Amino acid sequence: MARFDGLSAVLLNCSLVHDASKSHTRRLLNRVRGIMATEGVDVELIHMLEHQVGFGMVPDTTEIGDDRDDWPDIHAKIMDADILVIGTPIWLGVKSSVASLAIERLYAYSGETNEHGQYLYYGKTGGCVVTGNEDGVKACSMETLYALSHIGYTIPPQADCGWLGEIGPGPSYGDEVEGSNTRAGYDSEFTNKNATIMTWNLMHTAQMLKDRGGFPVGGNVAETWREVTNAEDQDPDAD
Amino acid sequence: MARFDGLSAVLLNCSLVHDASKSHTRRLLNRVRGIMATEGVDVELIHMLEHQVGFGMVPDTTEIGDDRDDWPDIHAKIMDADILVIGTPIWLGVKSSVASLAIERLYAYSGETNEHGQYLYYGKTGGCVVTGNEDGVKACSMETLYALSHIGYTIPPQADCGWLGEIGPGPSYGDEVEGSNTRAGYDSEFTNKNATIMTWNLMHTAQMLKDRGGFPVGGNVAETWREVTNAEDQDPDAD
Amino acid sequence: MARFDGLSAVLLNCSLVHDASKSHTRRLLNRVRGIMATEGVDVELIHMLEHQVGFGMVPDTTEIGDDRDDWPDIHAKIMDADILVIGTPIWLGVKSSVASLAIERLYAYSGETNEHGQYLYYGKTGGCVVTGNEDGVKACSMETLYALSHIGYTIPPQADCGWLGEIGPGPSYGDEVEGSNTRAGYDSEFTNKNATIMTWNLMHTAQMLKDRGGFPVGGNVAETWREVTNAEDQDPDAD
Amino acid sequence: MARFDGLSAVLLNCSLVHDASKSHTRRLLNRVRGIMATEGVDVELIHMLEHQVGFGMVPDTTEIGDDRDDWPDIHAKIMDADILVIGTPIWLGVKSSVASLAIERLYAYSGETNEHGQYLYYGKTGGCVVTGNEDGVKACSMETLYALSHIGYTIPPQADCGWLGEIGPGPSYGDEVEGSNTRAGYDSEFTNKNATIMTWNLMHTAQMLKDRGGFPVGGNVAETWREVTNAEDQDPDAD
Repeated sequence: MARFDGLSAVLLNCSLVHDASKSHTRRLLNRVRGIMATEGVDVELIHMLEHQVGFGMVPDTTEIGDDRDDWPDIHAKIMDADILVIGTPIWLGVKSSVASLAIERLYAYSGETNEHGQYLYYGKTGGCVVTGNEDGVKACSMETLYALSHIGYTIPPQADCGWLGEIGPGPSYGDEVEGSNTRAGYDSEFTNKNATIMTWNLMHTAQMLKDRGGFPVGGNVAETWREVTNAEDQDPDAD
Repeated sequence: MARFDGLSAVLLNCSLVHDASKSHTRRLLNRVRGIMATEGVDVELIHMLEHQVGFGMVPDTTEIGDDRDDWPDIHAKIMDADILVIGTPIWLGVKSSVASLAIERLYAYSGETNEHGQYLYYGKTGGCVVTGNEDGVKACSMETLYALSHIGYTIPPQADCGWLGEIGPGPSYGDEVEGSNTRAGYDSEFTNKNATIMTWNLMHTAQMLKDRGGFPVGGNVAETWREVTNAEDQDPDAD
Repeated sequence: MARFDGLSAVLLNCSLVHDASKSHTRRLLNRVRGIMATEGVDVELIHMLEHQVGFGMVPDTTEIGDDRDDWPDIHAKIMDADILVIGTPIWLGVKSSVASLAIERLYAYSGETNEHGQYLYYGKTGGCVVTGNEDGVKACSMETLYALSHIGYTIPPQADCGWLGEIGPGPSYGDEVEGSNTRAGYDSEFTNKNATIMTWNLMHTAQMLKDRGGFPVGGNVAETWREVTNAEDQDPDAD
Repeated sequence: MARFDGLSAVLLNCSLVHDASKSHTRRLLNRVRGIMATEGVDVELIHMLEHQVGFGMVPDTTEIGDDRDDWPDIHAKIMDADILVIGTPIWLGVKSSVASLAIERLYAYSGETNEHGQYLYYGKTGGCVVTGNEDGVKACSMETLYALSHIGYTIPPQADCGWLGEIGPGPSYGDEVEGSNTRAGYDSEFTNKNATIMTWNLMHTAQMLKDRGGFPVGGNVAETWREVTNAEDQDPDAD
């Protein structure tokens, strides 16, 4: 029996490519998915642009006039999963508009709480997969992992992985490279090692939180923060 | 008996002010310290600019010509602690040069491993305290928390807190405000609530990791990543 | 006769609010528009979410399957204008998905050149207006102004302005404030001063470039960079 | 006679390497220097870590207790120059602590004004050179160019250049590469083209500003912003 049998994960691909099969980011997400599935995690890869997701800081944009909004269904899957990995390409050094949109829509629910009064995403574990052709993995990861942490996700060590070619125009992850039998990046030891470590760290952290019945309660409930040892009662001018 | 008795923490103040007592960031760090101490954590607040810390990507800059380098001593304390909180002021929207220096010096050891072969900082928990007079808490936190995660720290939910005044010049955290009995920010419910939640989340995460004997081993040892289910063996072109 | 009579500007509001009249960012953009109009600039304020703009790194997303794409019309207006100001709200410390989308769509044309062989946006001047309720003006401006510079815009001194309230939840720009006759931020001297300086600097720079017939040609044509004094011919190991 | 004979430039190398001759960033700065010198610009390359520059938001840190501070001399050279290029290596995806230090020290003078009442750095032109071994040129440039713009520098189109290797550990700019006659990056067409374009754009912009006698005065003097058409007088709620 696999070790992480009870866990589930959503990998959310925020590529700008409408056809999932043509997304470069999907290729690296697939490798993460493969590890998770082999280790027993119930994993689903969602391609944002195969869905119609509205703009707006509300849980459901049909309430603000959109004819259709697929986000509530995607969000329900994210809520059911222990792990969320956001995948994004890099454009001009930063994450895609689709990744920003996904994060905004996650954030739109962030005032809600779980049965303990903690913010909604407490107890879940977050990571990030980034591909580009030359520059920006860390810049994308910073923003993405910070957003996930801010809304309640726990972020394991080395919670991101990515691939980049040499500076300048060039092949994207998985593109054919003239005169080579290997597709761009598929044999990058660095990328494969980091994708492996990230995935295992996500699974370990999710398992640890699951074993504890969620993120420990105490001191992290917005409603009752004054009832515990709290900042307001401490002397800021102590020596 | 306090709940977090076995834990220890270093709060590293990366203020640009040489005299610790005049640092605004220290004031908010003091509140974090107060909560931790009350809850049984053995906590030390270190003011970087009371020490002489050299520039360079080496563990000890006396090896590259400096007469003195206090970093190895500071680093030893960080290695002994379960929790590290980096405190930084904001200048031009970003963290201080001293915070960047501290992170560089942490990173200079990052190739080293613990007894399991994991990177050195695995099993530790990281957070961030930011103060400024108008703008940039999240930007500073993004960079700082990402750096800590990258080198092995686990990042809890809402792992940062900060204070800012309204946009434009104005009082810094703890400055006297004309016509007011309260010092700037001391009664900010938002800042106090977030400082409280951050601190508890740091303690919970550190305790969870301590109870597990460190961050779980498996799949996260650079030397042996090919011996586990790994990215290289997964099909990037799967449907 | 006004001093900047021959100039034109597009202010692109990337708010997440569908109804333009409810956008907070629009209110500050309106002040920028007012200065420009008074000084003779032909200025148009476009509200992105009143249009249907597709995702994708192509000039026209109807070519990749969308039923409709309003971007080519918006882009034509941007190409006709001397000045572009991107307005964005802040969510989780960064610019909106709509702002990222606008920048991606600008970038999708960036391989094209003008009659001199310079990239398309050379000779134009760029700026940025940001509003939020607590944090992130500079972080949004950094990304936005960098993107504009990267694709060919000239960035004047102090090319951004914004408004933020004190840290934590609170009114957005222009919201009614209980017990006050003034709407939030409307009397902020800092915001008004910076909006004024930004606007004048945009107009001065645009006029300077117009007087020169565009950005000076020479050394900045990708096709012929080897024909001028160039980096490849310089000794990187010089003393 | 060269075209840019009357111009001067400071290239400020913020490498973490104490010995200038071992800095990778210096190598790319040298190519920028070569172009400038050939075109008649009076250019000086300063290696920050060959000097002793203090921490603190003051013009001269001997006033706050340092025995020595070389910054006032460096700053005097920067004030004499039309162009400033900040060179920085990348560590953990961001600019070096030394680059942050240089920017803080520039900022410490930013309240001062020139003879027109504009902020001190008005009329000057800024750029950025970044080298690393895998990731982060744009992230470093964003922060650096934004800081320069914020304090008064004009930023030309494509005001940065850089070099990166493929993702993961590898040679830095100018390192010997086994089995190759060329040093890493020296023949990168992308880097050489961008370094060329950046340098020319810096020279053109500086010349344009010099020909105008500095950045045009009007609407950008903090003391008198209410005397021109200004934001406060515009209707934020206009249709």
